[in-house]
Order: sequence, then C-alpha cells, then structure tokens
Amino acid sequence: MLKELKVKDVMTKGVITVEPKEDVVFAFEKLMKHRVSSLPVMDGEMLVGIVTATDLGHNLILDKYELGTTVDQVMIKDVVCVNPEDDLVTAVRKMNQHGNEEGIINQLVVIEDHQIKGIVSDGDIIRVIGV
Amino acid sequence: MLKELKVKDVMTKGVITVEPKEDVVFAFEKLMKHRVSSLPVMDGEMLVGIVTATDLGHNLILDKYELGTTVDQVMIKDVVCVNPEDDLVTAVRKMNQHGNEEGIINQLVVIEDHQIKGIVSDGDIIRVIGV
Repeated sequence: MLKELKVKDVMTKGVITVEPKEDVVFAFEKLMKHRVSSLPVMDGEMLVGIVTATDLGHNLILDKYELGTTVDQVMIKDVVCVNPEDDLVTAVRKMNQHGNEEGIINQLVVIEDHQIKGIVSDGDIIRVIGV
Repeated sequence: MLKELKVKDVMTKGVITVEPKEDVVFAFEKLMKHRVSSLPVMDGEMLVGIVTATDLGHNLILDKYELGTTVDQVMIKDVVCVNPEDDLVTAVRKMNQHGNEEGIINQLVVIEDHQIKGIVSDGDIIRVIGV
C-alpha cells in the first residue's frame, strides 16, 4: 500500500518556516506555538536548512547557545527532501537511510521545482498504514 | 511484516518518567534534556498519566499555566497502552484509533502486569518498515 500512495497524498501543506537570521529563542517559541517539531529555514525562496524542536530545546535548556545565536548558526544544512510524486516506500527509506542509531529522520521536506510544497512526517505515514 | 513483529522487539526500554507533584517547568526541562517527546507520570509504581513536550511547550510558551502548576494538573489521564506481546499492527491501530484530526498518538506506553516496560513510537515502527 505504501507503494501506491504518494508523498503528496499524506503531506502537510502550508509549512511554517523561519528565516536564517532569526534568534534561536524566537525559532523555538515558533515551534512550540505552532506545535510543530521542525521548521525549514528559508532564505527568501530558497531552502537553506532545518531546525528541530528536539535540538533547539535541548541546547536552550542546557544553556549551550550563546546569547544572540541565530538559526543559521545551528541549523542542519543537509536537509533530507522528497518529491511530492515519490511513493511512501521512498519516503520511509529516506527517513531510515538518513537517520542514525539515535533514530530515524522524523520529518522530510517536500520540494518540487526548488519550491517547498509540504512536510511529511513518520506520523503521517503511520496514519495511512492504520487506515 | 508488522504482524510478525512484536512491540517488545522495537520498543525503547529504560523509560524516563516524572512524578505527579513535579512542577510543569521541571517536567518540560526533563523532556528537553533527555530529547524525549513524552514522559509517563508515575505515582510510585503506578502509571497515572502522561505529559508531552508538545503540550507542555505550547502552554508554557503561551503562558497558559499558572505559576506552580504541577504535572498531575495538566497530564493526560487516559494513557493509551499496549502489551509487549502485542504485534505492531495492533500498535499502529491504537495510535490511529486514539488520535484525532490533529494527528495520531505518537507514543504508546508498554505495560505488562501493571508495570511499565517501555515506550513505542511511530518512529520505532517506521524504522522496522524501512529495514
């Protein structure tokens, strides 16, 4: 069934993003406010990175960032992306291939023609398996 | 394949928990420090609730809790549990059945003989699908 469904069928559209020069505290507040676990970092129209609630929260709570640290200083630059037309087998494979022993990549950014179209999460996939 | 694998094969053991009378700020810091997305609330040996990073973070950032709010005042009391011997189809079904339009239940507490044995997340399941 995962082979028959496409990323565009399950992704969340209307992605909330953040700018590279925003303060990490602002980014964390944005994550919490919108109840999302990651924010793609957009420099104008261009995807330049991603920040996660887990990373920012961990480092902020343990006081590991200097005052005034901005998103571009701490973001993950190697963003794992999929295409809206990719099937869910491809998405699951990418979540695993780019993860590590700590866990999979829980969210993939959906890109088409260099434009951000959505985000697909592990939860979005479990949701269609459970149908 | 999800039918052949059991919850105990993929769950995380050594669960980090919190006590009912702890302050919500302490609980949130614990979530962030350990990079986990939920904490089962244990009154001694008994599971009495669960708190999530999404809920606590959202309400703390938006200043929705009164000073001194404790975990038991805000925890989800209806904890969704599975047994270590349940297969993963059962786990996926529970994640979906107990979710709502906002999303699935991302983490299930694993209980056997009234004792907490682990936590199984949507990511744990995506990991074995991707193998």
